[in-house]
Amino acid sequence: MADVVPKERKILVAVDEGEESMYALSWCLKNVISQNSKDTLILLYAKPPRAVYSALDGTGSRSHLQGYLFSADILATMEKYSNDVAACVIEKAKRMCREQADEVEVRVESGDPRDVICQVAEKINADVLVMGSHGYGLIKRAFLGSVSNHCAQNVKCPVLIVKKPKCSSSGTK
Amino acid sequence: MADVVPKERKILVAVDEGEESMYALSWCLKNVISQNSKDTLILLYAKPPRAVYSALDGTGSRSHLQGYLFSADILATMEKYSNDVAACVIEKAKRMCREQADEVEVRVESGDPRDVICQVAEKINADVLVMGSHGYGLIKRAFLGSVSNHCAQNVKCPVLIVKKPKCSSSGTK
Repeated sequence: MADVVPKERKILVAVDEGEESMYALSWCLKNVISQNSKDTLILLYAKPPRAVYSALDGTGSRSHLQGYLFSADILATMEKYSNDVAACVIEKAKRMCREQADEVEVRVESGDPRDVICQVAEKINADVLVMGSHGYGLIKRAFLGSVSNHCAQNVKCPVLIVKKPKCSSSGTK
Repeated sequence: MADVVPKERKILVAVDEGEESMYALSWCLKNVISQNSKDTLILLYAKPPRAVYSALDGTGSRSHLQGYLFSADILATMEKYSNDVAACVIEKAKRMCREQADEVEVRVESGDPRDVICQVAEKINADVLVMGSHGYGLIKRAFLGSVSNHCAQNVKCPVLIVKKPKCSSSGTK
């Protein structure tokens, strides 16, 4: 009750296309962002690492390695899909923030979400990192459950891990 | 900014004798407890499981197993030490809360901190669990780093894991 100075914190929220990260964002908006705060909310979306499907399309020509992985058509399709997903996620997240947060910034970065999230948290000197408890993005299955663990262990700032209740009556409070 | 209804959340903070958990509590008081809130803060201290050193002293007589572990004197000393530590930690934590939180409850439970924390979070239907990132209590070394991981994976409510900055200029914000 003693704190009357408006807070000016950088709150980093890692979002993905899963419902859990949107729930985490919603929980954060209701429970972490304080009234009359000057908090800045930074929405971070980690796109699947380009290396997974597109590291080899830089020259425009087919290499034997590229042929071994995917055709150029598939690469382009995946890249487009990935951009569409990113845009959709960010749009949805921004809509959720509109009523509650004064300042919202958006970052979309490519890479392993574990690395991306830790690096951005460090770089912007976040005051708190908020995330769902599961994996992120297209490579969700490969990292199931390990992204939040990894970040909790490696990020220096406080980490808030939010789980979506499975069949709770109220959902968010 | 839309939320004008005072929050009435149950905020469970796991404390131990380490500086990190006190930092976590302090961070929570400054960043999670909202002004004009009706939040209830529940301080939870997990005492080392009695089974570790005192399961066998119930009869007052020495069994061959007890002799194998500790003498009765050592058991009594450890039990007293453990109670003193618990009292000291709780006292310190309550002092920290005095200015910021309206309602503070205290719980001291015996057992593996991983189980104790998860069980209490569940039992009281906590809205958020706050903890340091390291182990708890006398058995810290045995579980280093795994308590917060375990809780983040098993507790249903959001979990806020707070690390103490190593050589940050400002400490808490």
